[in-house]
Order: sequence, then structure tokens, then C-alpha cells
Amino acid sequence: MLGVCYYPEHWDEDWWAEDARQMREMGIRYVRIAEFAWSRMEPSPGRYDWGWLDRAIEVLAGEGLRVVLGTPTAAAPKWLVDMYPDVLPVFADGKARGFGSRRHYTAASKRFRAETDRIVTEMAKRYGGHPAVEGWQIDNEFGGDDTVLLYGPEDAEGFRAWLSARYQSVEALNRAWGNVFWSMEFRSFGEVIPPAGQVSDANPAALLDFWRYSSDSLAEYCAAQADILRKYAPGRFITHNFMGFFHQFDHARLAASLDFCSWDSYPLGKVEHFPLSNEERARWYDTSHPDFSAFHHALYRKLRNDRFWIMEQQPGPVNWAHWNPAPRQGMVRLWGWEALAHGAEVVSYFRWRQVPFAQEQMHAGLQRPDRQLSPGGKEVAVLGREIEAVGSLPQIMQADVAIVLDYEAAWVTTIEPQGEDFNYKLLLHRWYEALRRHGINVDVLTPGAPLEGYKLVLVPCMPSISEAAMAAFEATDAHLLFGPRSGSKTENFAIPSTLPPGILQHFLPVTVAEVSSLRLGVEIAVSGEGVSGTISRWRELLETELDAMVTAKDGAPVMVGNERASYLGAWADPDLLHAIFGMMLDRFDIAKTTVPEHVRLQRRGKLMFVFNYGPGAWTIPFETRRFLLGQKTVPACDLAIFEPGRSSSV
Amino acid sequence: MLGVCYYPEHWDEDWWAEDARQMREMGIRYVRIAEFAWSRMEPSPGRYDWGWLDRAIEVLAGEGLRVVLGTPTAAAPKWLVDMYPDVLPVFADGKARGFGSRRHYTAASKRFRAETDRIVTEMAKRYGGHPAVEGWQIDNEFGGDDTVLLYGPEDAEGFRAWLSARYQSVEALNRAWGNVFWSMEFRSFGEVIPPAGQVSDANPAALLDFWRYSSDSLAEYCAAQADILRKYAPGRFITHNFMGFFHQFDHARLAASLDFCSWDSYPLGKVEHFPLSNEERARWYDTSHPDFSAFHHALYRKLRNDRFWIMEQQPGPVNWAHWNPAPRQGMVRLWGWEALAHGAEVVSYFRWRQVPFAQEQMHAGLQRPDRQLSPGGKEVAVLGREIEAVGSLPQIMQADVAIVLDYEAAWVTTIEPQGEDFNYKLLLHRWYEALRRHGINVDVLTPGAPLEGYKLVLVPCMPSISEAAMAAFEATDAHLLFGPRSGSKTENFAIPSTLPPGILQHFLPVTVAEVSSLRLGVEIAVSGEGVSGTISRWRELLETELDAMVTAKDGAPVMVGNERASYLGAWADPDLLHAIFGMMLDRFDIAKTTVPEHVRLQRRGKLMFVFNYGPGAWTIPFETRRFLLGQKTVPACDLAIFEPGRSSSV
Amino acid sequence: MLGVCYYPEHWDEDWWAEDARQMREMGIRYVRIAEFAWSRMEPSPGRYDWGWLDRAIEVLAGEGLRVVLGTPTAAAPKWLVDMYPDVLPVFADGKARGFGSRRHYTAASKRFRAETDRIVTEMAKRYGGHPAVEGWQIDNEFGGDDTVLLYGPEDAEGFRAWLSARYQSVEALNRAWGNVFWSMEFRSFGEVIPPAGQVSDANPAALLDFWRYSSDSLAEYCAAQADILRKYAPGRFITHNFMGFFHQFDHARLAASLDFCSWDSYPLGKVEHFPLSNEERARWYDTSHPDFSAFHHALYRKLRNDRFWIMEQQPGPVNWAHWNPAPRQGMVRLWGWEALAHGAEVVSYFRWRQVPFAQEQMHAGLQRPDRQLSPGGKEVAVLGREIEAVGSLPQIMQADVAIVLDYEAAWVTTIEPQGEDFNYKLLLHRWYEALRRHGINVDVLTPGAPLEGYKLVLVPCMPSISEAAMAAFEATDAHLLFGPRSGSKTENFAIPSTLPPGILQHFLPVTVAEVSSLRLGVEIAVSGEGVSGTISRWRELLETELDAMVTAKDGAPVMVGNERASYLGAWADPDLLHAIFGMMLDRFDIAKTTVPEHVRLQRRGKLMFVFNYGPGAWTIPFETRRFLLGQKTVPACDLAIFEPGRSSSV
Repeated sequence: MLGVCYYPEHWDEDWWAEDARQMREMGIRYVRIAEFAWSRMEPSPGRYDWGWLDRAIEVLAGEGLRVVLGTPTAAAPKWLVDMYPDVLPVFADGKARGFGSRRHYTAASKRFRAETDRIVTEMAKRYGGHPAVEGWQIDNEFGGDDTVLLYGPEDAEGFRAWLSARYQSVEALNRAWGNVFWSMEFRSFGEVIPPAGQVSDANPAALLDFWRYSSDSLAEYCAAQADILRKYAPGRFITHNFMGFFHQFDHARLAASLDFCSWDSYPLGKVEHFPLSNEERARWYDTSHPDFSAFHHALYRKLRNDRFWIMEQQPGPVNWAHWNPAPRQGMVRLWGWEALAHGAEVVSYFRWRQVPFAQEQMHAGLQRPDRQLSPGGKEVAVLGREIEAVGSLPQIMQADVAIVLDYEAAWVTTIEPQGEDFNYKLLLHRWYEALRRHGINVDVLTPGAPLEGYKLVLVPCMPSISEAAMAAFEATDAHLLFGPRSGSKTENFAIPSTLPPGILQHFLPVTVAEVSSLRLGVEIAVSGEGVSGTISRWRELLETELDAMVTAKDGAPVMVGNERASYLGAWADPDLLHAIFGMMLDRFDIAKTTVPEHVRLQRRGKLMFVFNYGPGAWTIPFETRRFLLGQKTVPACDLAIFEPGRSSSV
Repeated sequence: MLGVCYYPEHWDEDWWAEDARQMREMGIRYVRIAEFAWSRMEPSPGRYDWGWLDRAIEVLAGEGLRVVLGTPTAAAPKWLVDMYPDVLPVFADGKARGFGSRRHYTAASKRFRAETDRIVTEMAKRYGGHPAVEGWQIDNEFGGDDTVLLYGPEDAEGFRAWLSARYQSVEALNRAWGNVFWSMEFRSFGEVIPPAGQVSDANPAALLDFWRYSSDSLAEYCAAQADILRKYAPGRFITHNFMGFFHQFDHARLAASLDFCSWDSYPLGKVEHFPLSNEERARWYDTSHPDFSAFHHALYRKLRNDRFWIMEQQPGPVNWAHWNPAPRQGMVRLWGWEALAHGAEVVSYFRWRQVPFAQEQMHAGLQRPDRQLSPGGKEVAVLGREIEAVGSLPQIMQADVAIVLDYEAAWVTTIEPQGEDFNYKLLLHRWYEALRRHGINVDVLTPGAPLEGYKLVLVPCMPSISEAAMAAFEATDAHLLFGPRSGSKTENFAIPSTLPPGILQHFLPVTVAEVSSLRLGVEIAVSGEGVSGTISRWRELLETELDAMVTAKDGAPVMVGNERASYLGAWADPDLLHAIFGMMLDRFDIAKTTVPEHVRLQRRGKLMFVFNYGPGAWTIPFETRRFLLGQKTVPACDLAIFEPGRSSSV
Repeated sequence: MLGVCYYPEHWDEDWWAEDARQMREMGIRYVRIAEFAWSRMEPSPGRYDWGWLDRAIEVLAGEGLRVVLGTPTAAAPKWLVDMYPDVLPVFADGKARGFGSRRHYTAASKRFRAETDRIVTEMAKRYGGHPAVEGWQIDNEFGGDDTVLLYGPEDAEGFRAWLSARYQSVEALNRAWGNVFWSMEFRSFGEVIPPAGQVSDANPAALLDFWRYSSDSLAEYCAAQADILRKYAPGRFITHNFMGFFHQFDHARLAASLDFCSWDSYPLGKVEHFPLSNEERARWYDTSHPDFSAFHHALYRKLRNDRFWIMEQQPGPVNWAHWNPAPRQGMVRLWGWEALAHGAEVVSYFRWRQVPFAQEQMHAGLQRPDRQLSPGGKEVAVLGREIEAVGSLPQIMQADVAIVLDYEAAWVTTIEPQGEDFNYKLLLHRWYEALRRHGINVDVLTPGAPLEGYKLVLVPCMPSISEAAMAAFEATDAHLLFGPRSGSKTENFAIPSTLPPGILQHFLPVTVAEVSSLRLGVEIAVSGEGVSGTISRWRELLETELDAMVTAKDGAPVMVGNERASYLGAWADPDLLHAIFGMMLDRFDIAKTTVPEHVRLQRRGKLMFVFNYGPGAWTIPFETRRFLLGQKTVPACDLAIFEPGRSSSV
């Protein structure tokens, strides 16, 4: 199903009807509106103006379009900021960021929470029962523009209250954080300040707790909006549009107050922002990397109720990356099908029409500012017809292999990189990429998610193993493969008394005796049975009686394991990772098909999808039957949908 | 004519007479003094001391030297700052920069304007009628050290007043800026703040207006000084010393209150500061790039009354670049002749003697601190003799080709780069360089300048076409060649309703349907009749019925045109640009001589100048007649002046 | 002798006895404690708790261990900061850095000085006469985390007082700084502010004086602690643990209140922090560069009383560099022997056991957190046995060659780099490295140290020659070899009236007529008799009648000299430096042995040490006699101790 983001307030009202008609004709069924329109809903304090929004919804509904309403809290009006300057977010430099863009608030502000309650209540009361309004989006891209960690007086106050609830006594806090070190002890919770602005490094335990508190604060803020919506808009769905590759708050926790997750998919913009090499960035500059979107589809689907939407899908060049190329011909259509192959219920484009003014004027829409279809818009029109032709898609089955994303791993390794290129996002990506190049489906889970039914569960890095995560590990029959730094920290950011991997020694009798981070340019050759390659960036010295599956050239074990679990104590480079995972898939009888770097397979029930990110064509090397789209040789930037033949092992 | 910058206050008074004598003997006729001597003119509030300045002028006049007096406002004394701390400039980080260097004021400060009026009035009253004082320089290098955009309370106040005058109503302002986006609407002008310190990007329309306001504020500040000088120093010229490659305010607007422009020419320092590659920087490190000075000579000559001075010319190593090499032997003399070839009335060196103390002690002068001639000083002595020998130079004729520099283009592309290496300065340089390598004279104009008499007018990039610019385009018979992004914005930083190139569609029926910025390393091959090369950084998708003059390998048009005008919708790399311009020169019967990358020709009346930036010698490939300087083979770092032969097409 | 840093407050008290026993068994004789334990000594204002420290000392003494007590001033408790926020350090951005790490004070704070007096007095009264307490360490790593130059109100006040004492009159100050430039004149000392936060560069003379003042302020702060300790702990030694490659204050001046210097040796961490190329960093990543430690041993030995300790020696990976590898097998032992070869009285490891919590949890100790020996700990155990077996080492003799480190040179070239890669630390390192590759002992001295008995004294760069330094130069018979920029500044950061090398013209009739800094990639070939190579980064134009020892390809002299002294007016690249120094050693009959880049020799009395930093083995190329350790072929990461044969010239 297709959707679109629309801003009626940006256009002459007499364009609305034609816009709605064209949307319907393109196959669009859902329209998200209103999430940045606070200054139009409430032009001055307490004076509401709903007329324009009433009419906009009416026009859309008139074409049978279903409406998703956004709460407007991501962009409070100037009058609110002038009345209550304390709502502004204070950054780590101690300075408040001001009005003039968006996200200019801290969720810790009691005043902003009250203002939020007020505007959301008013809006929900008015539209909660509207028959055309099928669901609600809360706020917009929580945490965007680095607004998770904030340092104002109310943030500090909230942090102290959170710590007091968690530790009960300041002695417990001092112990948990190890405050005896460098005389950092507090005599009361009142002495605690957020960890910022010291002469040198802050206590990592303080930083981790501050991150947890900040994440909780956002989740609480979101839940408060959800409570209002559930009260005044019963039966309507509630979602939020998360971002890609964004780990600054615990998405699973925030998602708990939602019915399902949505996410905003900008495949090209992320090529610039993700820590790829410049060579890789040039390789994928106008197609995106073939694992960027897929990973997030899998993540957000499993995060809440096995459902997800794309709330914002890139239709052309964006405006916010270092460089902003147009997608190569065919990619907009391909990305749309890819989302559907991974189970997206709705693929909603951002935005209907490129706005000719203000900050995002260089961001493409389905229409150009002159009301003609953009190149991307033309591809979406094709996509709409294809979706209708192909019809409903079969159920997605659980994969054999799961990979676990741990938000706290991102925090821990950011707080304490130890080697400056130990990048959790990249590690996770490399593991996922190496798996996907075996042509398999991969589920993406978060810690504590049930692991029943998997044959192989990969945990690229999970420094602190929560009770829930441990319980899930213990409950599954899947083989567990842990990556570097897993189990290396207690809940309070300390080294376990038995050394890493700490509690994972329950599965694996191995001790990390020493850790080396390796500077750029230092690579160490390693090999195992049928496996060879290099490690770099990170190497652990493993003491163990276990057999080594991979060994460094100096004889030290790099990967060890038993029936139950394995431990890979290094940053394995891509070819090595691919070889190791191939070995593991074979070991656990998981069928695989090696695909080139630019091709990915995705199974959805009896259907197989092939996505070719180019530049060359790819011929499917196994037996195929009925093609619903495409054919055996898949051109660059194109796809195929088909049923694999019986003899195919895939 | 030669000049020099002199600081009598830095030296023992008993050196002055000998200094003046040596100046005269070197051929120096003009001496600029006093522009940083406020603390000596007014050692404490209201207590003036003119004695030393009286005597200095007298000593100089005694040797027949003509004096240019600088107003001292670029360096207010400590007592003034202590009395009125509000005069200090507040930067975008919200912090005032303090005393201890220079330019520590905001032109928006009413107090500083009053103090300026006072000191300038006192100075002008005393010296306005002095027979030795031939002219005045206002302040020093306006905008230096990034002091154009300032953010203090008075800057904000001035901005609000400027907006109120421009838009009349806040509704008009909201419309013009598109403030409906992200709920950025204001309810009154009083709510407006300068665009800085937001959570994410500010509204580009606000940024552009803030830049315009700031530019106007400086121009107004300069004009106020000019008014005083015209009153008390009637008949004396008024100038200002602008900088090179500095686009942060509208120089044409500020120049309106001057009699002519001067500029400060530091050929080597700019090699480090200009966005060349490191390879290019190493290539030109001790000669400078052969187009750097020439471009500015042409610019400042046309900016006001077809006259210009070099107020500060580099005589040796400077102190402010990342690296500061000595000029290669011969270059100081060459740069001097080059300025004269381009019409400079005076080439004035900075400075007479290297000062052994304070910030600029590593900046060379014509003399070393020990009162001996520096290596550069020795070359200037030769230059002085040569100038006398060669005698007066013929009139400069209007060129066949003009290129247009648009200060607003620099602001627009800085505010919205869209691709992070879309650098307007570099674009302009590449176009000028590619033209000059055809051996032709090129005039440099600003928008709205009359275009009569040109055969070809190049506009590398002009996003917003002012009424004056459009009128000039319409009034000329010249062929107009527009580069990327031209016409892409309305006056209010919005995309034109008919899409780019907007109003230029009056000349060219073409539509820019989509824009791609291309990351470093992405190059696209293009070709046309007799033309081939690559584009990079920026590419536009052109929809048009016009014939394509250059086409990308994928078939899309890159450059299109008709008799009246052409449009080049990409960042063309240097070889491609050179080929395209060669094609255009041929088309419009403009004689050209291809010169190597290190050689440039410049015509002044019947005389031709050759400048060889080295390293190899160059033999003039066409017929020559009388040589005033040099000969047919021009050694590296040397020049020739001659009359071209009749059969020469140049 | 071995030592260790121990933090009893970090561990259960019932581990202490076992820790002490194991220390003794490893050969450890000294234990440093308490330097970060203020919050345990004084948990709340005025309430002292010495019980735990009494018991800890008792336990250590019980095993015969000698205790070094650290004063705890580097980490004041939260209550102190909350009571007196003015003690916090204000950085150049005008912002105070807060509590939560260490070094959160300014030595200019009168309040902090009073609090320091109080806690040090209390501690010294209690333990000054304790028989197990053999010495004291004052504070910890003065200047760490860039806390030398501070900008708060009391820093400014202290600076004004310091200037007033130095210059007596504001007229003298204005003259000394050249404040007439840019109207920077003050009317009274009260108008002076620290040089920070200007619009552009501050006056370098002001910056240099501010650096001198800040250095003096730290020295004064240290001396005040020393006075208290000498009063209450008579007969005990007083030291301070300095850092490596740290030049932000004058170590010689601060050391004047100590009995000897200690330093903290982190060979691997420095590989990342030192301005080597990335290729060199990868070359030495797990061994360190073979001159890094040796240089500092030599420096700190000569700084005070020909004695020194290593107070903190790296035993494994650290936590604070960009990357933190484990030392290659053998290096921990090698570094220990190397320190002893250079005369260290004690090599004390940081730290006994890796702490599992807080900021330094990834910093290795001799023990792992699980109380097992770490890999480094195992090497130290071997080292302990070897030290006992080898027995006492002979006296270190004065070397033939000395090199002079000038802290002010670091300040001057930081304040005025003139070429952005003119790095004083690197220059000094290159000179020392080129010397040491001739296999000789080299003493490292500071300006003014007596130079009797040397044959050759090298001064890589000494811009301002103090009276004491000049007196030492005049008093010695050694040949003096000066490097670039030596003598280029007066005491007040001005160019000497006779031009550089200023006062050194007393030895050398040479004039630096012009200076070029050369950008990366510009190299100039030079040659002399038996010498050739390149210069880069920095080149001076020398005017002289002296013979050129090295000449550039354009004929200009690069190195000149006479019997008494030589001057090298360029940044000579490593091979050229090595060749020049080889020529000079031959000239002054100093025996040399060329060693490969990874091998170093060190003589201690009749014994010779060979240190092989790997990767290959090295066979000693001259006659040897008795080996105390190792043999003729020294494996990688290993060493040998032996007596050279009679015929050996070394």
C-alpha cells in the first residue's frame, strides 16, 4: 500500500482537491498531515484555528484517502518559546539552542509536557473520532538533530530523581559508579550533576546512566502523548516515525507505547552519513548500499507486533547530506518493492510535492514545485500499478538466523570506544552484510526478544547482558555466536569480576585476558578450517580450553566455541566474516546462495524477491518457476519476484 | 606609480626623514599612514594628540610624497572598549570577541557610530585641507576576520528595523520567508531574532536577508564616514582597501560611497587560503596562481569609476597563511607590472619596513627591521626604475568578454551548498582561468553593470536575478552564457514557480527538473562538437526542446542554448570549460591565443604584456614589434611588454 | 629497583595483605599511594578519616615495602567545588570546567591554595614522620588535560600582578609588547586582560608572558606544597610525576622545589599522540619508537640532581590514546631495562591491578581485575628476577654530546608557528633520533645548564636566548650547533635589531635575511661534503661570509659555521640530519656506531646495553666480552647487557 506526507498548509487551498485526486490515481491510500503545523493550529496562546485542518481532512477523505494525523510537538511556535524559554534544549556546551528550526524542547521540561498535553488533548478531542483519521503519529523523529542528551536544569533534576529511584541511597550510587576513583564521591543525590563539561573524561558509568535516563525520559514523554490519544482516539493506531541508523535512545522501550513502528527511509542520504569509506560511498552513491534499507525493515518489523510502515520514503534527491544525488533510474521503484518484500504495510513518500521555500526546498517530492511528477514520482506511479497487479503478498516466515541489535552497545562503545574506529553501527552492518551475502533472510531483534525457532543467533556486540537478554539466550536452542566486547561490562559499566565475557562464561569457558585496539593500517592474518582473512581495529587475547575455530598467525585463538555458543574476539574484516558465517550456516544446515555484493534475495512465504543494486545484470543461478515480476536475468537497478523451483535449496 | 604603507608611530622619530628620502629615491610617490593609530591620536577619552602626526606628514611632504590618511576605526583603544563594552562584536556562538587585536566592533552599535563620527570628524577637520593629504582611506579591510555577520542585541535590533522597512508587515515577512514551514511564523517584527543557534538549520531566506542586512549595515557605516570626509576634506579622494576573494558583503554597494576602490593584494597568502587542491597549492606555492591577482585587478577596476589602486601589495613572505614562503625571485617585480598592465593607478606596498614586534612581525616589508632592503624591496627598486623608463601606459580598452561576479551567489551557495564542495569562489575562478588560458582580456563585472559592447557575457552562477541584472541582460546584444544554479532562486530564496532557471526562461526555454550534487570521486563523461571532458560536483537534469551543445554519456543534455543565450547545467571540469569557452570564442569571432597554464597575456591599448609564472620559459608564438621590456622568449618569473605585429590576430 | 602505584581505597581491605605479599615477591620495593583519595581523607569539610590510610601503610610496611605518599590536590571533592566554585579552571573559551574528573582547579585561586595548604598540612603532620613513608609526590601530572593556561578572574589578576612586578610601569609594558601596534596600548596595569577571545590573533609578546606567568604560577603552587612537606616531613624526599612530551610549563623551574624528578612513561600511548606520520605510527604501534623513552630518561635525570624515577610505567594497553594496543611480547621487560640503563633509580608501574570501574578501567595493571598477573605483569616478574641477578649497575658517565630542550621554544613556536607544521617537539625528536642512530649516549639539558665537558652541544631551536643560556654557551669549549629560529627573538618576542640569530652573532657572523615556511610536499635538495638530502617545512635565507657546510641546489647556504659554532638554517629531513651529525661527530672525534632504525645502544659505565625494538634480530657488529644478559645476536624485542671489547671504538 502506498502513502504520502502532505502539508496542506504549504499550498493554496484551491490546489487541495486536485492534489487529493492525483494521489488517489497514483495508488496512494494514506496521507500523513499536520505534524509541523502548531503555529497554524494555535496561532496565539490558547486561540485555536481548526478550520483549515477540518477542510483539509474533508478534501482528502473525499477521495477516499485515509488520514494519519501527526501531533505537532516537534515544532513549537515562537510565542510558546518566548513565554517559556525554559523549554529550550541545553546542549553539552551549556548553551540553550533557540527557536528557528525544530525539536527546540527538552522532554524534561515540566512546562513543555504541560503544553504538549494541552495541544495533543485539544487535537485528539477534535479529531479522535473522525472517521477518516485512521491513526496518529506522535511527534516527529524523536532524537533528531542530537536532542536526546540534554543538560539544562530540568534535565539535571530529572536525572537526579531517576538515580534516586534506581539506587535508593547515594552510597549505592557511589559504589555502582565506582566514585571512589578520583574522589568523585557524592554525599547526597543533590550533589549529582549530568556528566558534561569536566576537565577530562567523565565517569563512563555516569554517562551510561545519563543516557539511560535520557532515553527513558523520551519514552515517558511519548507514552504520555499515547495515553491522551488512546483516551480521545480509541481504536485508532498510534505510531512514531523513527530514523535509520539512529541509536541514541532505546527504540524498543519507546515503541512499547505504540501499536507499531514506522521509520523514515532515506537510502541515499545515509550513504553519506554512515561510516563507510569514501570508496564505498562513491560505489553506492546513487543506489544506496543493498543492506541499508533491508536491515531497518527487519528491525522495525520485529520491534513491535510484527508490523511496520515506512512513514517517509525518499523519492529523489534530499537536501541534508554532504552530497545529494538523484537516485539512479529504477531505484525509487526498487526501494518501494524492497520495503514490501520485507513486510511494510504502507510505503509513504516524503513528500507529495517539493516545497519551494524554507529549509527543505531542495528535498524532492513526488511532484515538483510546478505540480508535475518528478522522476521519482513517475517511478512511484509505475510501482502503484505493479502493486495492484501483483496483489496481496504471502506471510513473512520467521528466518533461521537472527541478529541482535543492542542500543546500549551503541552507548557503551560511544562512551568508551577504546579504539577510535570501534564503531558499533559499522560492526552491526558488517555482520548483517556478511550474512545477507549468503542470500538468506535475517531477522533483526533487540535484547530480550524471544529466540525460539532460530537455528543461529548472532550477537555482534553486547557489552552488558541484561537479565531479559540472558533469559532469552538460555531459553533458545539456537547456537549463539557472540562478537567482540560481548559480556565485557556489568550493568554498571564495570568489568565483570571474572573478566569478559562475564556472564557469557555460562555458555563459554573463555576469558578475555587483554584487549588491543589496532590503529588504521594494522591488520593481522588469521585462518581456520576453510576460512582465512584478516582482523583489524580490535583484538582480544583469549584464554580458554576450547578449540579454536579461527587462529591468528601468532597462534592465539581468535574465535572459539562449543556446541552451544561461539565467541569471536576480534573485529573481523568483511571477507573473513563472510567466510565464518558461511561455515556456521553450513554447520547448522541453513541453505545459502552466495550473491554478489550488489544483489540481495528476500523470501516472503513462497515468493522470492531479487533486488539488483547494479551496476551489472545478474542471472538467478537456481531453478525458478512462475515470475510475478521480472525474469531470470535481473537488470541493474531492477528486481524480480518469483517462486523458486523445488530443487532449489533456497 | 608606486606607493607604500608607513607607520611612523612604530619607529623612532629620528628615522622618519631618512625613511622618506629612501622612499622617494625608490620611486615611491604615495604613503598611506595612520589607519591603526587611534590610541596615539586620542591616548585617553577626548584628549587628542596630533603633534606626532603633524610632524610625520610634514616630513613626508618634505620629500614630495603625497599622503593618504586612514581613519583609525578598525582598532579602537582599550579605554573605548572598557567604557562601552557594547561596541564589541558578538559572533554566532553568542559570545562577544574582545580587545587585543583589531576589528573589535559591530557597525550596528550606535555608540560605536557616534565614536566613529567623533574621531573621523576631528581628524578630517585637522587634515582635510592639508595640501600634502591627497586622499583618505576609510577604516581597513571591512569584514576582515569574519566580522560581517554579527549577532549582538544591536545587530538584532538593526535587523528587525531593516526587515520592517523591507516587508512593511509581518504577514509579508512570513510569506516571503515561508515561515509556515516548521511553524516558524512570527506574530510581530519584535519576535524576529537573527538566524543563529537553532537546533538544526535556519531558514535560508532568513539567512539571506540577515546577510543582506549585515552588508547594508557595513555600507551605511562606510557611507557615514565618507559623508564626514566629503564635508571636511573637499576635493580629496576617498577609498577603501578591500580584500581578495572576499565575498561576505556586497562590495559594489559599499563602493558607492567611494571615489574608487583599492584592494590588498597578497598573491602567495591566497594560494593557501583558496580552495585549490594541495597539488595545485604546491604547484604555485612561491609564484601564486596566474589568475589570482589579475581577476581582482579587473574586478576592482570596474567596481567604481574604472579606477583602482593596490593599497597593500605583498613584498615578501607574509605571516598569516598556513605556510608563508618567500616569493620566487622575480615575482615581486612581475606582480607589480601585472597590476599596472591591468590599470592600477598606484601599487602601494605593505609595508615600508618589517615591524620587529607584535602580531605582524613575520610579515616582510620593503625594508628589513635592520633598515636594509629586503629581497622584495630590491625588486621594487628595479620596478621603480623600469616604470620611469617605460613611461605612461595607453588606455585600457573594454574587453570583448565579461564575466559577472555576484556577491549574493556566494551567500546563497554558502547558505545552501546542497553539495558540500559547491564553492562559488572556485567556480568563478575556474571560469575565469579557462577564459584567460585563451589569451584574452576579460572584464569582471557585478550584476546590473552595463553590458553594452561585449560580445560574450559569462555568468558562472547567479541564483537570484535582480531587476537591475535582468535589465542589463535584456539591454545587451552580447551572447549570455549562464552556469549552474543561475535563476534557481527568487529574491526571497525560494524556487521559482516555473522551476529554475526561472526568469532566465525569458531567454532560454529550459527547465531544471532535478538536481544532483556528486560526491568527490564521481565524474561523468560528457561531449559535444569538438568538445569533451567531465563534469563533477553538480549536475542538473534539463528538460528542453533546445539543441544540446554538450551531452552526457547517458544522453541527457548538459549544455543547451540558442542565439541569444546558453545554459551550462553542471560543474564543468577545467579542460571541459576551456574547450567550451574556446568553442564560444570561435563562434563569436573573438581572437584567442592558447597559452600554457603558467602564462597569461594582457592587452593595454596597443601594448601587449606577457606574464610568465614559470617554471619554464615561453616563446611568444605570434609576430611582435617593438619590445619595451623583455624579449620574444620570456624566462620564468619574468615578463615582456611589446607591440604585437600586424598579422597577429590577438 | 621496582615500584608500583597502588590504590588501597579501590579494593576490599581484606585483599591488601595478599597484594602486599605478592608485590614483595615480584621484587617490588616502593609503593605510591593516596594521590587521588581526598574524598576518603576528608569525606566532608573538616572531617578527616585517616584510619584506612593508617592501615594501608601498615599492611604495606608489614611486607617491608617503602611508601611514597601523594598529596591529593589533583582531585578535590565535590563538596569543596560546591562550596567554592571559584576554584574551577576557566578555559580560553571563557567557560569553567566542572567537577567529575580531575585537575578541576586553577593554581591562581587563593581559596584553592588555602585548601591545599590545609589538606597537605594535615596529611604531612600525620605521616611526615612515619618510618615507612620514604617520600612524597606533590599533586599528579601538573598541567595534564591542558590546565596550564587558564583564563578566570583570578588568573587575570595574577597575570596583572606578575606583569606589574616584571615591568614596573605600564609604559615599559607597552614598549616591551609593542602595543603601539593596532592601538593596543594600555593606560594602566588594571586594563590588561589575558590574551584570549580577540577577533584575530593576540599579541605574541602578551601570549608569551601569559605562558611564563602561568608556568610560574604552577611552580609557585608546587613550591608551596614542598615548603609544607619539608617542614612536617623532614628528611623525606619530594618529587613530582611529570609527563612525557609535555612542554606547557617550564619543568626546570618547577623541579627546583623537588629533590628529584619522576616521570610517567607510556611508550605506546605516545605513539598515537606524537606528531609522527601514520606510517610511522603503524611501524611502532606495539613497541613504541626507540627514542621516545630514552629521551625522557635523559631529560629528567639531568633536570634535578642527576637522579630520576619512573613513577608510572606502562604495563600493558592504556585507555587514553586513539588506539590502545597491547605491547608486543618482550617490550614491557625491555622498557624496564631501558629505564635502568639510563639511570632510573626506581621503575614503578601504573598500576598494581587494573581497576574494573570508572574512567581508567581499560588501563592495564600488573594484575588483571581477577587478581591474576597480566601479560605485562608476567614480564615484570621476570624483570624483577633479572635485576636481582645482574646486581648493581655502574655509574653513568657524562656523554660527549648534549642536546638542549627549551620550553620557551615550544611556547614561541606554538604562538607563532609561521609554518603550520613547524612542530618543536618533532624537531627535537628528529635531532635526538638522528644522533642516537649513531649509537652514542646523548645528554638532554635545559637552557642554562652547565656545558663543561661536552665536545658537541646541539640546540635544535632556541628563539630567545636567556642570559643564563648565553653564559653557559660562552663558558664551554664544546662546539655549538644551532638549529633554525635560534636567536630569532628577543626576551620580549621581538625580532632582534641585528636580525636573527641575534645574540648568537657573537659566535657566528650570519644574518637571517628572510624566512620561508614550505608547505607539505615542497622539498629542496641540498648537499655538502659527504652529505646530501632534503630540507622541507622551513628555510632561512642566510647572509654570511662564513663557509657553507651545506648548500641548496640554488646555491644558497643552508648550514654555515666556524670553529666555535655552526648554524643550520632549515628543517633538515631525517637522512640529512643523520649525515650532518655523522660529519660533526667525526669532526670532533666522537666514536660512533651506525645502528638500524630499531636498535639503540646505551652505555652505563663499563657496561653496554643493546635494545632491539624489532622486528628483526640484530647482531652486535663490534667486539664484545662478558654478557650479563643476552648474547651477540639480539632478537627482536629483546636486549643484551655486556662489556664491549677493548678494540671496540664505542
